[in-house]
Amino acid sequence: GNSIPAKKPCLEPTLQLSYADRAKLPNVHPLASRLLMIMEEKKSNLCVSADVTGSEELLQLAESLGPKICMLKTHVDILKDYTTDFSQKLQALAEKHNFLIFEDRKFADIGNTVKHQYEGGLYQISSWSHVVNAHAVPGPGVVKGLSAVGKPLGRGGLLIAQMSSQGSLATGEYTNAVLQMAEEHSDFVMGFICGSKIAKRPEFIHMTPGVQMQAGGDQLGQQYTTPEEVIYNKGSDVIIVGRGVLEASDRLKAAESYRKSGWDAYTKRVAQNSQ
Amino acid sequence: GNSIPAKKPCLEPTLQLSYADRAKLPNVHPLASRLLMIMEEKKSNLCVSADVTGSEELLQLAESLGPKICMLKTHVDILKDYTTDFSQKLQALAEKHNFLIFEDRKFADIGNTVKHQYEGGLYQISSWSHVVNAHAVPGPGVVKGLSAVGKPLGRGGLLIAQMSSQGSLATGEYTNAVLQMAEEHSDFVMGFICGSKIAKRPEFIHMTPGVQMQAGGDQLGQQYTTPEEVIYNKGSDVIIVGRGVLEASDRLKAAESYRKSGWDAYTKRVAQNSQ
Repeated sequence: GNSIPAKKPCLEPTLQLSYADRAKLPNVHPLASRLLMIMEEKKSNLCVSADVTGSEELLQLAESLGPKICMLKTHVDILKDYTTDFSQKLQALAEKHNFLIFEDRKFADIGNTVKHQYEGGLYQISSWSHVVNAHAVPGPGVVKGLSAVGKPLGRGGLLIAQMSSQGSLATGEYTNAVLQMAEEHSDFVMGFICGSKIAKRPEFIHMTPGVQMQAGGDQLGQQYTTPEEVIYNKGSDVIIVGRGVLEASDRLKAAESYRKSGWDAYTKRVAQNSQ
Repeated sequence: GNSIPAKKPCLEPTLQLSYADRAKLPNVHPLASRLLMIMEEKKSNLCVSADVTGSEELLQLAESLGPKICMLKTHVDILKDYTTDFSQKLQALAEKHNFLIFEDRKFADIGNTVKHQYEGGLYQISSWSHVVNAHAVPGPGVVKGLSAVGKPLGRGGLLIAQMSSQGSLATGEYTNAVLQMAEEHSDFVMGFICGSKIAKRPEFIHMTPGVQMQAGGDQLGQQYTTPEEVIYNKGSDVIIVGRGVLEASDRLKAAESYRKSGWDAYTKRVAQNSQ
């Protein structure tokens, strides 16, 4: 055809594996497997970042966008009215619409502290969030601390290997160290927050924030990339979209549009199998 | 005398400035100045890390140890019963005993997110914590976001330049980048979490965690250094002590012992002025 992509990436073979194929790999983290199956079933690699400040609004988002997403990302610590009742309702919606909950806590302390932060306090994150993430800067103790709490509950962790914000220090050797830490703790770590595919192992999930339909940025250093760029060119698996959906006049329509863009980029990627 | 230190450090001139002298420097952050004056007045460079899980116990700690400390470090997100009433009582105790409150939140997200996390949610950290800290890994946006909330309130920030945990990635070039970020945002950043003095500017406060009377570690990668090593050899300003005090049979006695060790190391350091 005439629609030759401007930048055709040199794809590794593992990029062409389908989500469903990867879900069945023998060494895949059980929660990564579940996520990959959800993605395949719902034809969605969209994670919506529900950065709202009221519980009721967050639950409404989960109810209305639930069918479009594979994952809902939360920051419960910006909710002005968090309650245990809220977290139970959110879990019920995740069950009903078949998506995973990802509390974007960015744990970043020593092992002994993150254990308490993950399990205890008012939020008791480990009791309701399927997935949490962590910075690797404290060293492997942060993963060990989280794993001690999360692994018995069947939870999974994402390590932040790269960030979408301007001037991030998560580059080069730092990113390599994150990758190694993940390999060494793959019984808990199921993937990465990153800008592009960084791990060769197809068992790892790559999730990319800072996604909007048009590239750009905000006043505080956030930088945006498109779904096509993230999934097709960069080889990531999941697009994380916040303001692109939340600031739309019709959030459901916007979510469907991101779902379709992300999915189209994915099908285009795996289609290269047969070329 | 006969008590020659085994490792006599090669001290820079700024290390020999007293806390009181540094409090009066023209470009010092107002909150750093206040802290340095508190340290001088109370003869204490001890920050106790109040890592307990009940509000009542934390308030009791603040009441009993208050006279011994320059700062109390909290993790409010491990408290099972945080309320606004608790934060008001803690502020009253900080006033009564003349110490600063330092919520060890380790903010580590993009600017737009940390703004909400600092100001909002159930904890409203900016409303009661004099000092907060942040990882530099997201890039300068994290400082800009925090500063937008904290600066108008007279708050101060510490950047995490080094960590006490094993295998930390905050070393070398990372630490240098943190230093530069602090220099560029010194209207909000008042100092560092670090293992040793890293900045030449005497206006910056250096605070070191992982301090115990005896060197050692825990099962999750924490590593301990002594007050003498931290203040005298490494040139840091404030020792942060958690389990060394909390796990003592007599917490008040332990706090006094750390206060004295830290202060003795400091007086020994500044005494080199006159040598």
